Amino acid sequence: MNATNHQFRLAARPVGMPKREDWKYTSEPVPEPRDGELLVKVLYLSLDPAMRGWMNEGKSYIAPVNLGEVMRAGAAGRVVSSKHPGFAVGDYVIGHFGVQEYALSDGKGVAKVDPKVAPLPVYLGTLGMPGMTAYFGLLDIGKPNPGDTVVVSGAAGAVGTVVGQIAKLKGCRVVGIAGGADKCRYLVEELGFDAAIDYKSEDVKKALKAHCPKGVNVYFDNVGGDILDAVLTQLAMHARIIICGAISQYNATGPMKGPSNYMSLLVNRASMTGMVVFDYAARYGEAAREMAGWMAAGKLKSREDIVQGLETFPDTLLKLFKGENTGKLVLQVAAE
Amino acid sequence: MNATNHQFRLAARPVGMPKREDWKYTSEPVPEPRDGELLVKVLYLSLDPAMRGWMNEGKSYIAPVNLGEVMRAGAAGRVVSSKHPGFAVGDYVIGHFGVQEYALSDGKGVAKVDPKVAPLPVYLGTLGMPGMTAYFGLLDIGKPNPGDTVVVSGAAGAVGTVVGQIAKLKGCRVVGIAGGADKCRYLVEELGFDAAIDYKSEDVKKALKAHCPKGVNVYFDNVGGDILDAVLTQLAMHARIIICGAISQYNATGPMKGPSNYMSLLVNRASMTGMVVFDYAARYGEAAREMAGWMAAGKLKSREDIVQGLETFPDTLLKLFKGENTGKLVLQVAAE
Repeated sequence: MNATNHQFRLAARPVGMPKREDWKYTSEPVPEPRDGELLVKVLYLSLDPAMRGWMNEGKSYIAPVNLGEVMRAGAAGRVVSSKHPGFAVGDYVIGHFGVQEYALSDGKGVAKVDPKVAPLPVYLGTLGMPGMTAYFGLLDIGKPNPGDTVVVSGAAGAVGTVVGQIAKLKGCRVVGIAGGADKCRYLVEELGFDAAIDYKSEDVKKALKAHCPKGVNVYFDNVGGDILDAVLTQLAMHARIIICGAISQYNATGPMKGPSNYMSLLVNRASMTGMVVFDYAARYGEAAREMAGWMAAGKLKSREDIVQGLETFPDTLLKLFKGENTGKLVLQVAAE
Repeated sequence: MNATNHQFRLAARPVGMPKREDWKYTSEPVPEPRDGELLVKVLYLSLDPAMRGWMNEGKSYIAPVNLGEVMRAGAAGRVVSSKHPGFAVGDYVIGHFGVQEYALSDGKGVAKVDPKVAPLPVYLGTLGMPGMTAYFGLLDIGKPNPGDTVVVSGAAGAVGTVVGQIAKLKGCRVVGIAGGADKCRYLVEELGFDAAIDYKSEDVKKALKAHCPKGVNVYFDNVGGDILDAVLTQLAMHARIIICGAISQYNATGPMKGPSNYMSLLVNRASMTGMVVFDYAARYGEAAREMAGWMAAGKLKSREDIVQGLETFPDTLLKLFKGENTGKLVLQVAAE
């Protein structure tokens, strides 16, 4: 094969919002798989808030991307060449293929998917990491009971939309927090949330008080910052907070804002627990089967926000931090 | 009876550290018990960090003390007059008798204690609320396993000394954080802590790294602020943080400092849970029996820091916030 593989590599550790010069756009010949390897043509890239964290140095739940490395990213693609016994040319697969057009893989962490069951981008969203994050975070840590009030921030994002819909399926009252009237309308009218709070135009604390008269039993936090602090003032007794992310803080250049109302945990005998979806890998199948069933029954809707073209990657990624996506943000790299 | 009952009443809501003029020293005739009541001569007052919170307005885990009211305080005393079938003159009792020399009670929340089993001040410390707080917070929320590293702040205080000793009894490595060389020496040499960190002279984060090479499995937080933030950087996977208090913040006049390193909860899949000892009231007996057994066997030491004289109350209370007490701070109001 003589084709060229275009890639985005990390050129510098960003300070604040990633800039164009933090990336290096490179090209190299498409590699040939050796024994035990497969070559994947990347079709869709998953763009996730967590990617911002991977660009930083220092200990976290996963090693940082090194300078000069192809940026890490989840992706869906098609096997175009294989010397791996488990994969054949034409197989559709998901894995951490990186921000590039072609990826070599030894098959570890790669899973086959069936585009007849769900469109490929759904395997990066509702049936992928974001969906798994929502499912296990809400059910395993949040432990919602029917009648509980569940609040989710980043509610119109890939994780938030699934959290809210699963909470509705479990008989909860669901309040989403999102930025902008369109997103809020989408949550209530399309996804069946009981209420949505537009943090850009509303006083979040007052709105929570109005929409959660019995207090907040479960809070699924994707954003941190002032919104976490506002929710802390409205907890019900024995509330459970799932710390899934803190997108409002990822591009902060000063010190991270800690939740200054955390003593509400004491007053309300509440808990705040961090989660990383990888811990649930052994149970992804179980969750995917249940969620695929809900989707087939029309009880769980998936929405993807698909942008075209690998070359747009640096700008497209920023949509996450500017709150410009609704549903799962996906970058289409090539036609299926 | 014609004696006088001296009292400290809350005169103003303090801003920052309570001042003398936030209190009103009053006197009134000692009341007579009516049917169903008992009169207690207060012998020892329990001085607790939580009292600072009770002086503030606003929702908390307990109603605030109203302006003009006798300040709420746990106490030990002797029944001097009784028209209550459950109590006789001469009984020794503990209850929330308030900062005064005599208290009328309907018997609710009052328990008889035996000064032959333990000296009265111990019923305000190791066998009282602080001991119960340590016992249930550590064992029920912290769930320490043998070999775990347990860190406790406010380690030389009434709660901290008990937390550390119980953790040792459970086979843990115990590191205390306290202010000053004397307190640290006491923790290691008298109470058997494995190490103690003097936050006034040491870099807490570095010292934690040195003393907790496998990370912190359980952190019992009495202080909040910078120390909580330092411990957050040293968590082991699946660490449990018990939020019991935040004495470093109780007199803050600005906004409370939130733990800016709270995303360590995510990285380490850790949890932070608030506790209020009153929730365990039904199990106090169980805990007291076990702790009295440990004390009798010489495995649990109790230390009280006893100051004389009701009139010293405003100043003596401040010892807690200046870190001047070692062990349980008790104000002796009258001779036994």
